[in-house]
Amino acid sequence: MSEQLDDAGRLKHLLTLEGMPRGVLEAMLQRADALAEYAHGGSEMRDALAGKAVCTLFFEASTRTRCSFSLAIQRLGADLLNFDASFASTTKGESDLDTLKTLEAMGVHGFIVRHKMDGAVAALARSALPGTVLINAGDGRSNHPTQGLLDMLTLRQAKGPDFSAMKVLIVGDVNHSRVARSDLHALHALRTGEVRVCGPASLLPDDDTLHGCVVGDDFDAMLDGVDAVMMLRLQRERMSEGLVTSLDDYHRDFGLTMARLRRAAPDAIVMHPGPMNRGIEITGEVADGPQSRVLQQVANGVAVRMAVLEALLA
Amino acid sequence: MSEQLDDAGRLKHLLTLEGMPRGVLEAMLQRADALAEYAHGGSEMRDALAGKAVCTLFFEASTRTRCSFSLAIQRLGADLLNFDASFASTTKGESDLDTLKTLEAMGVHGFIVRHKMDGAVAALARSALPGTVLINAGDGRSNHPTQGLLDMLTLRQAKGPDFSAMKVLIVGDVNHSRVARSDLHALHALRTGEVRVCGPASLLPDDDTLHGCVVGDDFDAMLDGVDAVMMLRLQRERMSEGLVTSLDDYHRDFGLTMARLRRAAPDAIVMHPGPMNRGIEITGEVADGPQSRVLQQVANGVAVRMAVLEALLA
Amino acid sequence: MSEQLDDAGRLKHLLTLEGMPRGVLEAMLQRADALAEYAHGGSEMRDALAGKAVCTLFFEASTRTRCSFSLAIQRLGADLLNFDASFASTTKGESDLDTLKTLEAMGVHGFIVRHKMDGAVAALARSALPGTVLINAGDGRSNHPTQGLLDMLTLRQAKGPDFSAMKVLIVGDVNHSRVARSDLHALHALRTGEVRVCGPASLLPDDDTLHGCVVGDDFDAMLDGVDAVMMLRLQRERMSEGLVTSLDDYHRDFGLTMARLRRAAPDAIVMHPGPMNRGIEITGEVADGPQSRVLQQVANGVAVRMAVLEALLA
Repeated sequence: MSEQLDDAGRLKHLLTLEGMPRGVLEAMLQRADALAEYAHGGSEMRDALAGKAVCTLFFEASTRTRCSFSLAIQRLGADLLNFDASFASTTKGESDLDTLKTLEAMGVHGFIVRHKMDGAVAALARSALPGTVLINAGDGRSNHPTQGLLDMLTLRQAKGPDFSAMKVLIVGDVNHSRVARSDLHALHALRTGEVRVCGPASLLPDDDTLHGCVVGDDFDAMLDGVDAVMMLRLQRERMSEGLVTSLDDYHRDFGLTMARLRRAAPDAIVMHPGPMNRGIEITGEVADGPQSRVLQQVANGVAVRMAVLEALLA
Repeated sequence: MSEQLDDAGRLKHLLTLEGMPRGVLEAMLQRADALAEYAHGGSEMRDALAGKAVCTLFFEASTRTRCSFSLAIQRLGADLLNFDASFASTTKGESDLDTLKTLEAMGVHGFIVRHKMDGAVAALARSALPGTVLINAGDGRSNHPTQGLLDMLTLRQAKGPDFSAMKVLIVGDVNHSRVARSDLHALHALRTGEVRVCGPASLLPDDDTLHGCVVGDDFDAMLDGVDAVMMLRLQRERMSEGLVTSLDDYHRDFGLTMARLRRAAPDAIVMHPGPMNRGIEITGEVADGPQSRVLQQVANGVAVRMAVLEALLA
Repeated sequence: MSEQLDDAGRLKHLLTLEGMPRGVLEAMLQRADALAEYAHGGSEMRDALAGKAVCTLFFEASTRTRCSFSLAIQRLGADLLNFDASFASTTKGESDLDTLKTLEAMGVHGFIVRHKMDGAVAALARSALPGTVLINAGDGRSNHPTQGLLDMLTLRQAKGPDFSAMKVLIVGDVNHSRVARSDLHALHALRTGEVRVCGPASLLPDDDTLHGCVVGDDFDAMLDGVDAVMMLRLQRERMSEGLVTSLDDYHRDFGLTMARLRRAAPDAIVMHPGPMNRGIEITGEVADGPQSRVLQQVANGVAVRMAVLEALLA
C-alpha cells in the first residue's frame, strides 16, 4: 500500500485497494458518482487533462478494460497512446522496464498497465520517475483496483453508502481472480456487514485471502438473504487443469439461475465483471433480468476511471 | 427498411439503401456534397459531434473503410474508439450482442459495424438502446450503404442530379458484392434511366436482385453508350470455388481496357470500390486514366460518412 | 536530396539527411530545441496543425517510432490515423502506391512512412500529389532522418552547437543500420571535427558510406578521447547469417563497458537508438550510468518530430 502513497499520504499511483483507508475510498466513490453524468458524453470535463498524455500499456490483452480507459482518457481531454505490449518491441528483447522508461521519456504522464505477473505493475511503479502515475489495470491474480471501485460504486448506488448493513456474496473461481481480490479488499475497507464466499474448494484460495469471510460450497445455503451476488467468470481452462469436472457440473452447483436467485433478498442485485459465460456461471435470464447490474457496472467503469485519472493526474 | 426509421419517418440507423425514399437519399447527397470542402481538412465542423463517442466495431477486417470513417469521425470532433472484434474478447466466447451492449453501456453513441453475416448489423440494431445509432459498414453480401451513397455522389458530381437520364453499367461479381447491391438499391431509388448488369452467369445472382436491370454477359455490347461503368473487384477465391476458369479468361471477357472503354459514351466515367486488381478486372491505364473517378470515390467517402454521422448523431 | 526540395529550395518532404544544407539542419535543430519544452505536455502548440490529418503508414512494424510520432502529431493538434500496412489491405494485393493514393484521396495531409525496402519512401514521394508531405521513418538500410536529427540534437545539447570541435565514434553493425547512415549524413553536413567508425569488418559497409571517417576494429583504441560514443543495436540474426561468431565474442570485442568508457573523454556521452541489448553491445551499467543520454535521445525524438511536422505541414 505504501508504494502508492506519498509522504503526505496522497495517492501517487493506484496499484491495489488493499489497505486503502476508508476515507480515501469513499471520496473516490463520491467523485465517481458525481462524474457519472459526464461519463457518457459531453465536453464539460475536456480541460481536466488537456495537454497530458496517457498510455494504455497492456502486457496482457484486454479489449474491454482498454476501451473503458480509452473513453475515460478522451473525455478528460488527454492525449491517448495505445501500446499493445504483447505485439511490440518487447519481442525485440526489450525489458518491460525499458519500455516504460522509453515511453516516460517521450513525455507520457500516466500509464494504465495490465500484466500477467503478480506484482509487475507495482515493480514498474517503483522505477518510475517522480510525477509519473501508474494505474494498475490488472496484475496476475492479485489486483484489479478500478474493477473493485466500480463494483463498490454499483453496490453503493443500489444499496446506499452504508456498507455495514450489507450482506455480499462472491461466487466462483476466487483463487484465480484479481477481481475477487480487489472486491474483497474494498469490501473490507468499507466495513461491509457480511462478506460470504462460495465456490468449489478447488477454486478457493487456501491462504488468508478469505480472512473475515463466511466461506462455503453450498451455493443455495450461501445465497440466503444476501443483498448482492457477485458472480465470477469461469475460465474454461480450469477444466483442462482438472479443477472443475465439467461445465455441466459447475453450472449445476455454482450457476446462478432465477430459481436460485429467489433465495437472496427480494431486492438483491446481481453483478458480473464480464465477459459472461451465459449458461455456465450465470443464465441469460438472470444476466438480462431486472436484478442484474451488469451493464451498470460497465457504465460505472468509465466514471470510476475518470475519477481515478482526475485524482492522480489533474 | 422500417428498422432504420422511427415513427416519424426519420432515419435512426443506416442499415440499407433498399427502399430508401428518394427525397431522403437526395438530401443526404446534397449535404455530403456541401461537406466535401470540409472533408479534407479544416476545423470548421469540429463542434458537430463534440463530446460524443463513436466506435468502429468491425467483426470483419477492413482497413480502408475503417480509415475513411475514422477521419470523418475525427473531423466532426467526436471521440473515436477502434474495436477490432476479430481479435477481441469475442474470442472469450462473448456474443456480438454482449459486445455491443457493453460498449453502449460505456457511453458509446454511434457504432460503425461491419460483419461477415448478412443481416447481422440490422439484428444488432434491433437490440440497441433508443438513442444508439448503428451505421452498417458492410454486412455479408447484402449491404454497404455508405459505399452506395459515395458512388451516387460521384455519379451526381459527374453527370448532374438527374439520374433519369443516365445509363449505368455494373460489371463483375455482383452475386458476392454488397457494394453492387447497395448501388442497385440507390440507383433504383434515384430512378436511374437504365441500369445494366454484366458478368459471367456464375457470378450473377439468380434471385430478384437484378429486377429492373438489363442483364447480359457480352461486355462489349453492354458498354455501348453508357455514362458510367462501375467495375467490381474480383476476389481470387472465385477461382478455387470454380466460378471463374482463370484470371486471364476473366480479364479477356470482363476486364475493362482502354479499347473497350471507347464503346461507352465519350464522357463516360469509370468507378471501382477498391482495392483494384490491376490487370484483372481493370487495366492500370484505365484505372489511372482521365475517365477514372476511383480517387474521387475515395474522397467522397469521407464527405458521405460525415453527412451520415451528422444526420444520425448531431 | 533534390526530391525533397521544391524549386525555391524549401523542404517539401523529409526523405534523407544526405546532402542537406548545414543551415537547414541547424535551423531544424534550433527549432526542435525550442519545442522541447512543449514536447512533454501542455496545450500551447495545439493549434499548429489543427484540422490536418497525419497518417503513420508503416509497411514495417515499429512501435517506438510510431509512438513518438503519434505523440508529436497529437501535441500539434492534428488528427491521427494509424495504418499498419503489414496487416492491412495490402494483403488484398493492393500496391503500396495505391494505398498511399487512397489515403491521400481521403484528405490525409502528411504521411509518416516506414518501409523495409531502400528507396521505397522516396519512390512514394515522387508519386504524391503536390501538397502531400512524406516523412521517412526508416527505409531499408538507407535512411532514418528523424533519428539522425534527434541524435544531433542530443549531441548539440551536450556539447554545444559547434560540431567542428567534436570527436564522435559510431560502433557496431553500420552496414545494416539506417540509423548509422543518417547519423553519418548529419555529422558530415554539420562538419563534425572527427568521425570514427568501429566494428567487425563483416559488419562495416565496403562502399563509400564511410568516406571521410576514421575506420578500425580496435574498439579500445578508437575510444581514445572521443566526446560521444554512438552504439548501434546488434540484431541477433547477424549470428545465423554468420556475420558474428557469438554474442559473447561480440560483447568482448565491441560491447561498451564502464572500463572501456574510461578511455573516452571524461565528459563523453553515450548514445544508443534503442531498444538496447543489455549485456551485448552495451552493459546495463553504462546504459543507466551518468554518461548515458539514451533517454534524452528518446525525449528529443518527440521534439524533433514536432519540429519536422511543423516545418513541413504548418
